[in-house]
Amino acid sequence: MSNSLFDEVLKLAGGAIDACGWADSALSKVMVNKLVECTRNRPHPWSTTSDYTSWKSLTDRTYQARHLPAAEAPGRQPDPDKIDVLFARPNGTQTFSNKSTCLFPAFAQYLTDGFIRTDPNNRAKTTSNHEIDLCPLYGRTEAQTLILRENDNSQGSRGRLKSQFIGSEEFPCFLYLPNGTVKPEFVGLDQPLVGIPIPVSQLTTLFAVGGDRANSTPFSSMMNTLLLREHNRVAGELERQNQSWDDERVFQTARNIMIPMFIKIVVEQYINHISPTPVNFVADPSVAWTANWNRPNWVTAEFSLLYRWHSLMPDVIDWQGTDIAIANLGLNNKPLLDVGLEAAFTIAAVQPAAKLGALNTNAALLPLERLAVLQARSNHLRGYNAYRVQFGLPRAETFTDISSDPRIVTILQDLYENKVDDVEFYPGLFSEDRVPKCPLPGLLLRMVGVDAFSQALTNPLLSEHVYNEKTFTAWGFQLIKDTRCLGDLLARQGAKIHPKAVTMTLPSWSYCWDAP
Amino acid sequence: MSNSLFDEVLKLAGGAIDACGWADSALSKVMVNKLVECTRNRPHPWSTTSDYTSWKSLTDRTYQARHLPAAEAPGRQPDPDKIDVLFARPNGTQTFSNKSTCLFPAFAQYLTDGFIRTDPNNRAKTTSNHEIDLCPLYGRTEAQTLILRENDNSQGSRGRLKSQFIGSEEFPCFLYLPNGTVKPEFVGLDQPLVGIPIPVSQLTTLFAVGGDRANSTPFSSMMNTLLLREHNRVAGELERQNQSWDDERVFQTARNIMIPMFIKIVVEQYINHISPTPVNFVADPSVAWTANWNRPNWVTAEFSLLYRWHSLMPDVIDWQGTDIAIANLGLNNKPLLDVGLEAAFTIAAVQPAAKLGALNTNAALLPLERLAVLQARSNHLRGYNAYRVQFGLPRAETFTDISSDPRIVTILQDLYENKVDDVEFYPGLFSEDRVPKCPLPGLLLRMVGVDAFSQALTNPLLSEHVYNEKTFTAWGFQLIKDTRCLGDLLARQGAKIHPKAVTMTLPSWSYCWDAP
Repeated sequence: MSNSLFDEVLKLAGGAIDACGWADSALSKVMVNKLVECTRNRPHPWSTTSDYTSWKSLTDRTYQARHLPAAEAPGRQPDPDKIDVLFARPNGTQTFSNKSTCLFPAFAQYLTDGFIRTDPNNRAKTTSNHEIDLCPLYGRTEAQTLILRENDNSQGSRGRLKSQFIGSEEFPCFLYLPNGTVKPEFVGLDQPLVGIPIPVSQLTTLFAVGGDRANSTPFSSMMNTLLLREHNRVAGELERQNQSWDDERVFQTARNIMIPMFIKIVVEQYINHISPTPVNFVADPSVAWTANWNRPNWVTAEFSLLYRWHSLMPDVIDWQGTDIAIANLGLNNKPLLDVGLEAAFTIAAVQPAAKLGALNTNAALLPLERLAVLQARSNHLRGYNAYRVQFGLPRAETFTDISSDPRIVTILQDLYENKVDDVEFYPGLFSEDRVPKCPLPGLLLRMVGVDAFSQALTNPLLSEHVYNEKTFTAWGFQLIKDTRCLGDLLARQGAKIHPKAVTMTLPSWSYCWDAP
Repeated sequence: MSNSLFDEVLKLAGGAIDACGWADSALSKVMVNKLVECTRNRPHPWSTTSDYTSWKSLTDRTYQARHLPAAEAPGRQPDPDKIDVLFARPNGTQTFSNKSTCLFPAFAQYLTDGFIRTDPNNRAKTTSNHEIDLCPLYGRTEAQTLILRENDNSQGSRGRLKSQFIGSEEFPCFLYLPNGTVKPEFVGLDQPLVGIPIPVSQLTTLFAVGGDRANSTPFSSMMNTLLLREHNRVAGELERQNQSWDDERVFQTARNIMIPMFIKIVVEQYINHISPTPVNFVADPSVAWTANWNRPNWVTAEFSLLYRWHSLMPDVIDWQGTDIAIANLGLNNKPLLDVGLEAAFTIAAVQPAAKLGALNTNAALLPLERLAVLQARSNHLRGYNAYRVQFGLPRAETFTDISSDPRIVTILQDLYENKVDDVEFYPGLFSEDRVPKCPLPGLLLRMVGVDAFSQALTNPLLSEHVYNEKTFTAWGFQLIKDTRCLGDLLARQGAKIHPKAVTMTLPSWSYCWDAP
């Protein structure tokens, strides 16, 4: 199925796209508006609190919002175990992406674990603050932020986050005492979501950080460590430039700078990696200042599911010559501590991710696919076709409209007894073909785009009367503008790797680099 | 000083205004946009949490937002006791309004006590939900709402709020036991803000309601009682029409209907009463759907002060032949219980309010004026002239630019030692002349208009994909549309008084009625 939205915009772009494939901010704005406006804007009339609109559904943001109302009667719901066959790698054989490195899933996981946050105790609910607020770094609440901040506020320490040096490398502090109990000072943090017992020797590698998922893998910890170092570097520079500022002001201004800096990377490295078009998206927040989609953020039940990109994970990671199975990277920072930050980024950036979609999930992660299918059901999500229509795409009339892979078609026909309208949201989403030149399938791409742009660019720090030198200092504002990719942050830490080599895009990908 | 904004719009209106003085919805939209756009839109960069922008200042809504940043250094701050002379009635002589009845302050107090809500324990903070949500009726929190809802959910009681009948009249339940202790079932409510000890016989007249200020006067209780009766009437009708609905759905849908119904009255009766123009404002929420000012609500430190309309209260109320001093109406529902709801509305609607502004506050209320001046200082508000400029008005160059009353000019000159830029926000606001044909002075009128329209019409129940029959039922949607004034609600309770006689505008006012 063609992704006509992008085709249209490419037509609009016309001669404006230069030989290198990059166009300007104006084109980016046209594209963002066209994408986001393919569906209804917020406020969403419904949430998971009830199947009808109520004051609670419109205001209680501990529930997830909905793009579509709850299904009145479920269609066919195959046994979740039987759905494994749709996601599992046939005969255990993985398929690699031809575009993405492992830095792509590493970043996606870190971003979404901070922002989407299904409540593990009630999957209709969310613990999200509904903003990209770097809560894995700073905590979800003011109380957690205070726990994570350096207690020593004397000159030379103002505005810093707690950290430790191991050799010359700065990391977050360890969360556990050697006996495996949480250090008393960190008891108020969201503790890591540990599903299965892990040995104390592994537990004690975990960091004291803002998020219950920020220790999920050494790649998540790598992202968080880079941002912690940059926060502390920025705080040091702000303190040096503003000697009259107290600890509080240095901290708050450093955080002011870090959040838009992260959003810049989200748009200019991550989204440009995803994008199938040669349009260069720029994180110019002014597109949101007059947009009709600038309405309060609210993470949806659909967004909470469509970002389960388990299939991106290859079976093993080559960790400087040693293959580590994916299952052994869970809640384990030892690999990161062993090699250090720059080497970890290099590991992520040089090897291919797996290809996103059906028939390509590592066996260890299959239970998570089942959980996602069940979460869609318990939240009464409508079927796959209803969402295609809601996001401006034509209904799939036949199973071959969903996928060109006969294996996937056969499995879907079998699961849904030949009723294409019964195909559920989550299985349908991941069964589609990838969009050409894009790591994502079509409906997923569109839904990611809508929620990403309409929620990232409406961040209060990017708003019309806030996004200026007064908020960030002139130095900080320029720093935000000068940041385009993770490699820029790493370079500021003195890393030797070239910023562009810290890439989500495989060097073999012929189309283009990450953002210029 | 002329209020050129209104003059401009009147020019725009041109021949469209018919002989009766009413114009159409399109004109109302032009006017609303023109008014709201006289100043910066939200998000506000600052709040009372700090004097600079921070993530906390942008997200922690327990603090008050700011239209202007904190003053860097205060100007002259006269002894608050000396400011009494600016507000006190000279020789105790009150001046009456020639436009407003006492229903105007009664409604203003009920509206603002539900929405603005300075935290009495920390005057930099607020307990507002930042929406017009009828929290005096429903409570500020879900837990309070549950306390206020009828426990008996059997047929004939679904979706109701707890109430009691005294004779044939329905009132909220009493809050206290005969011994003056709170009834156990109501302990979870915000208790009335009782500043001074009051006798048990008076305490036991207070109602179990959603707001700590909803028992402030019998007029506030009258407003709340009317809305409680209408909620229960609407719930009864919804139950009759939708027999399959459970208690929860009847309640939630009744609340869905009540909030926009209240906002209709805010705009179409209350704001039209205030408005000096013959433009008939209509509560058409579609003006907000495409507006650049449709951004998340956040009550400001300035809004929390400008609505202290103590001077509107006359010294005594003629309560069916008995004069009751204002001081004796505080936290006392006996006068309401004595005469009943219809009579109380009649009492409010037939006698003039006092005139708003300097030199006209009842002695008993002077401590509240002092408190307001101090609250502006502790929240570091900028001076009066800074706000004139921020809201598109010219600076006052001289004291006679502020007021045409030589008594007020002399007092201000004395208080601020001839430095007009030192005049503080709160004293300046109330020292101005009333706008012709309007109960409010010019800067106050403009600030009320900006925050009223930009926060009322952005209510989530009025939003583009929510304001429809699905949310309210077809019957409920029509009921909202058919509601224009408090008299409409009273008529539905079987009151004999003509709806238009329940008026905020004195019959002697030659200009026009309330909304048609």
